[in-house]
Amino acid sequence: MSLTAPTPSSIQEAYNLITPYVHRTPLLTNRTLNIIASTPQTPDALVGTPFEGSSPAQPKINFFFKCENYQRIGAFKARGAFHALLRLIERVGEEEVKKKALALAASTLGIPAYIIMPRISTPSKIAGTQSHGAEVIFSGSTSVEREAVVAEVQARTGAILVPPYDDFNIICGQGTTGLEMHVQYLDAVKRESKLSVHNKNGSGGAGLDAVITPVGGGGLNSGVATFFSDKETKVFGAEPNFEGADDCRRGLDAGQRVESVKTLTIADGLRTPVGVLNWEVISDKKKVAGVFSVSEEQIKAAMRLVLERMKVVVEPSAVVGLAVCLYNEEFRRLVEKEAPDGWDIGIVFSGGNTTVEAIGKLFSS
Amino acid sequence: MSLTAPTPSSIQEAYNLITPYVHRTPLLTNRTLNIIASTPQTPDALVGTPFEGSSPAQPKINFFFKCENYQRIGAFKARGAFHALLRLIERVGEEEVKKKALALAASTLGIPAYIIMPRISTPSKIAGTQSHGAEVIFSGSTSVEREAVVAEVQARTGAILVPPYDDFNIICGQGTTGLEMHVQYLDAVKRESKLSVHNKNGSGGAGLDAVITPVGGGGLNSGVATFFSDKETKVFGAEPNFEGADDCRRGLDAGQRVESVKTLTIADGLRTPVGVLNWEVISDKKKVAGVFSVSEEQIKAAMRLVLERMKVVVEPSAVVGLAVCLYNEEFRRLVEKEAPDGWDIGIVFSGGNTTVEAIGKLFSS
Repeated sequence: MSLTAPTPSSIQEAYNLITPYVHRTPLLTNRTLNIIASTPQTPDALVGTPFEGSSPAQPKINFFFKCENYQRIGAFKARGAFHALLRLIERVGEEEVKKKALALAASTLGIPAYIIMPRISTPSKIAGTQSHGAEVIFSGSTSVEREAVVAEVQARTGAILVPPYDDFNIICGQGTTGLEMHVQYLDAVKRESKLSVHNKNGSGGAGLDAVITPVGGGGLNSGVATFFSDKETKVFGAEPNFEGADDCRRGLDAGQRVESVKTLTIADGLRTPVGVLNWEVISDKKKVAGVFSVSEEQIKAAMRLVLERMKVVVEPSAVVGLAVCLYNEEFRRLVEKEAPDGWDIGIVFSGGNTTVEAIGKLFSS
Repeated sequence: MSLTAPTPSSIQEAYNLITPYVHRTPLLTNRTLNIIASTPQTPDALVGTPFEGSSPAQPKINFFFKCENYQRIGAFKARGAFHALLRLIERVGEEEVKKKALALAASTLGIPAYIIMPRISTPSKIAGTQSHGAEVIFSGSTSVEREAVVAEVQARTGAILVPPYDDFNIICGQGTTGLEMHVQYLDAVKRESKLSVHNKNGSGGAGLDAVITPVGGGGLNSGVATFFSDKETKVFGAEPNFEGADDCRRGLDAGQRVESVKTLTIADGLRTPVGVLNWEVISDKKKVAGVFSVSEEQIKAAMRLVLERMKVVVEPSAVVGLAVCLYNEEFRRLVEKEAPDGWDIGIVFSGGNTTVEAIGKLFSS
């Protein structure tokens, strides 16, 4: 483990620092989705998978949805951005930072920011970023193309780079999502024990059984996994598998980080490969218990359920964890095998930046 | 006033009765929507209206959104249905009611129900109703056609009719929405006074300045108006104006209830004319301060804001009150004139029963 690996206490410190600037987003439950997740898939759904012909798993699952789509800027990223900015101000002083430039959270503190975004970003994400006062500069979709534009902007403006995910302070900031979920879960099951699958034997007080987050660059997943690393809660990652977007899962299989990915998955927040620091955490089996992937159709089906049943607007990237729980038979067998009583699973809805047109387009094809 | 007019205390009694069966839905605030509502419309937006050429109003508005889209069955109607059913059981006994039939809430109590719905209802509403165990029977879209089918089903099954809105117990049940908003608003501004426009002079403790609800059959509006009839809060109604759907507003102008409406407004929950009992309440100026209408485009614009900015799924009918606040210049002038400090306005999001396909279709044309 590297000397710079974040720890649960570095996440607690990040939380203390960013609390005045970010929302405490709600942790929601939903009976209908629990029933759907706790019902076996149809044998048809397993056709063409390694589980074809065997009897579908029957896990018992109670969900706790951490709604970072209700976070400032509509995504968990506000946490890491505020944390990185506040740490930078600590280090070099506010005046110095103001002379330079920075990322997302900058506008709240009156600091200019340049954001490098892929040219193919969804219009709502571009407009959302601009509406927070940042200057958006476009690049190609791959990490190589993006880094070239970053270098050019830094040379031209003297801006300080805050990487979007591959950064100690960003990881700690995103990890505060896990800290908040943990506290909110304990409060919720204390208040209403029937929310937990452990209702009968009263063991719900130890924390969530599992948490699953999307994995793109890996900032959210590595931060959340770090927070839970000294607790009983198992942390999992979820990825789309379209055009190789499941780089993290493939890397874990091969024992080596996949460095470049080129995919146009509908989960557009998850098109990047996992970062170096993030990989250190995620590839540590004591921190992340496994990464599972889902298809585009499974992501759409999960998104439909969240919009139509929960009445909550999420972007496709936000529901990959839910899709794993509902449709990934390998994961469902794991839950069934590990936990006859079932699991309380925390799902991080990472963001909600979409448009009515994008929703229409997704579900018209 | 008729002897059977509901009172604030009949709504309190209804609330005590239904509390175990319905959700206490959240009362949400949203800074972005407050800013939009408190910004004058562009002069262009007034072209073709009676306000063309004059300078747009600049009201100050802070919203409090009562999210009945998160109610059981995805709409406020659960309140009235449970109340009507529980009162019926009180009156004739559970065994007797079980022999007969009833509406929506029946499935929770194991009682068969027949629901008469217009054949053109949205598929999500039909599926939602069926999923609660009711037998759906289709009719034409007008009230005359519907009543014919109702009479036929009653003759055939011996079912007891619970009218969807024109009924004392239904009105009291829907009115509990107002009671809950009132309590939640007082709690919210006590906890965080800056949520109120009255922050500066500390007068937010008296209750909301205004509440605006959609008006279809008028059950929700007349119930909410009854609840607030002994308080300072002014209650308004909101309607679509497409193809004469603004029957209530027109009736108030003419001094007489409009008895029949034929409209295919996108706000499909508001296609019915106001009921007789509901009209008694709504036409009482001491109870309802005014009814305002909005266009289909204005409803769509408000719905887009709620989905994209608040990340909350609502159906078109749910946002007519918000659309009035944002786009009805007559209403906006009223707020500006009545309240230099501005108003805290409660908006009832009446329901969220829509589909991703319906959202796509609405915003593709």
